[in-house]
Formats: sequence, C-alpha cells, structure tokens
Amino acid sequence: MKIEYRPIGSVHSPHQTTRGTPIQPSRARGIEGTVELEGEYVEALSDLDGFSHIILICHLHKATGFKHKVVPYLDTELRGLFATRAPSRPNPIGFSVVRLLGVDGHVLRIEGVDLLDGTPVLDIKPYVRDFDDRTNVRCGWLDEVRDRETTADDRFER
Amino acid sequence: MKIEYRPIGSVHSPHQTTRGTPIQPSRARGIEGTVELEGEYVEALSDLDGFSHIILICHLHKATGFKHKVVPYLDTELRGLFATRAPSRPNPIGFSVVRLLGVDGHVLRIEGVDLLDGTPVLDIKPYVRDFDDRTNVRCGWLDEVRDRETTADDRFER
Repeated sequence: MKIEYRPIGSVHSPHQTTRGTPIQPSRARGIEGTVELEGEYVEALSDLDGFSHIILICHLHKATGFKHKVVPYLDTELRGLFATRAPSRPNPIGFSVVRLLGVDGHVLRIEGVDLLDGTPVLDIKPYVRDFDDRTNVRCGWLDEVRDRETTADDRFER
Repeated sequence: MKIEYRPIGSVHSPHQTTRGTPIQPSRARGIEGTVELEGEYVEALSDLDGFSHIILICHLHKATGFKHKVVPYLDTELRGLFATRAPSRPNPIGFSVVRLLGVDGHVLRIEGVDLLDGTPVLDIKPYVRDFDDRTNVRCGWLDEVRDRETTADDRFER
C-alpha cells in the first residue's frame, strides 16, 4: 500500500545546513521564519490567527533512509529509532510545535524554528492544550539527558 | 512534487465506525487498543517502553477530500480547515498522543484510542514534555467550546 501526499507549502528559515540547526523548537527560542503556503490555501487559514501555537507536519527531505538504531544527538548510546526523534524514520515525517506570530495572506510568521530552509510542509494543525498536553509523563532515556546542550550535525543527512 | 509513504503498521481499536468515535485521545480515556507494526520494526522499538506516551502519526484513510472550511465537531460555525483538527485536510494526516501501556514484540498496547480500527500508521515518536508541551497557549475558537461534550459523526467520512 502506497500513500501519496503533496506539499502544501514550504518553510523559510535561517537554517541552511543541518549542522548547527536546533534539535527541537524548544531549543530554537527567538529563531523566526515563515511557512509559505500555496495560494489556494488562503481561505483554509481563516481563524488560525486566534491560536498562539501551531503543529507543523513536514517531510524531512534531507533525511537518510531508515535505520533500526541510531545514536541520538542528546545521547551517546544506540537507541531504537522509534524511541528517538531522529529523522532516519521509515517515513521521514517531522513534527514541530512552533509559535504563530501572524498570518499574512498565505504566509505564516513563526518562531521557534528547528527546520531547514526549504522543508516541505504537509499539514498545519492548531496546537490545543486540552488535546495535546499530557501530565505524569515518563521520557525513558531522555529523562537522563534533558539538560544537555547540543545542536544537530550531519549524522542523519544524505 | 509527490511524496510517497508506506504504512509501518495499523491500529486495532474498538471503533468500527466514525460515528461515535471519540474526537481526541483526551476524550478517549480508558479506551484501549493496539498498534501492530510490521515485524521488521521490532528492533527499532528498543527503548520505547521507557516512555509513558507516544505520538501516532497516521493516514486518515476514511477522510473525504480537502475542504477549505468545515464546521468542526465542537462548533456550529464554519472555520478555516487549518484552524481545526478535522480530517478533511489536503494531506489527511492524523496526530494523536496516546498512553503506551506496553510493548510486546511488534505490538504496542495503547490507551486513549481515538482512531478507527484499521487506520494505517506512518510513524511513531516518543512524546517528550520538554519538546512538545507549551505554556501560555491561546486556542482561538476552541477556547470558547472546550467543555462541550461530543463524539464524531460521519460528516468527514467518504
């Protein structure tokens, strides 16, 4: 079974290379960019400006192919791919919650950008705390390394 | 530009029809199901059992085509599609944070299931509060209707 999608737009960001890119929006504070959608989607953006944060679902176009285990940026040990946020996924789909600064026609101004310039965008959803926030969360190996400082390098790039 | 993905597995849930399905995991408390992955992915599930919650990225296979504006389940007015979580998206990608009860080989036992039985799964990611949780969140029209009770009906189904 094949599933076929088409980008609805793309990210414009200051990150031209994977090396040095923040590894998550929470580590990209103050970094601004835009999502430029195809013009046909202007009407579908109505009401979005009432939301402070949006979910970007993207195609990680620079990712290498699937690896069962990877050494994540924040760790020094091999971990199962699905227990990481590394891009070497069977379907290289990225998920980022960013702050929405404004909507100008078909262009969204965003902050907290951890995506490469030119990343294709597949979907935009409003971030809703009642839907998306969880309490009593355990984060496995990430609970041990949460305070480590790092940015991306090219280990997952083709 | 076309992007082609393949399912890595599928959801088994008690929800056989869209009508009556909870509209979000946060409204599906206590409802259990499984994600059955292809056997080749067992090794990639290492370390996942340390996480209490996972993000499921799914292909909403029953969704109708794209609509610019929809009346969401929780509202009575037309809203821009991207300001809703309705399935009638240009790329019908679903996003759910569910509780991970256990990992048995290639099968994940989950709780908080708001997905139809048979939904194809595209990706699984660990839910990480430091990455995914936000404070000072405004939720536009959803702030007005957050306490409404509802379940899905067939308005977005083909």
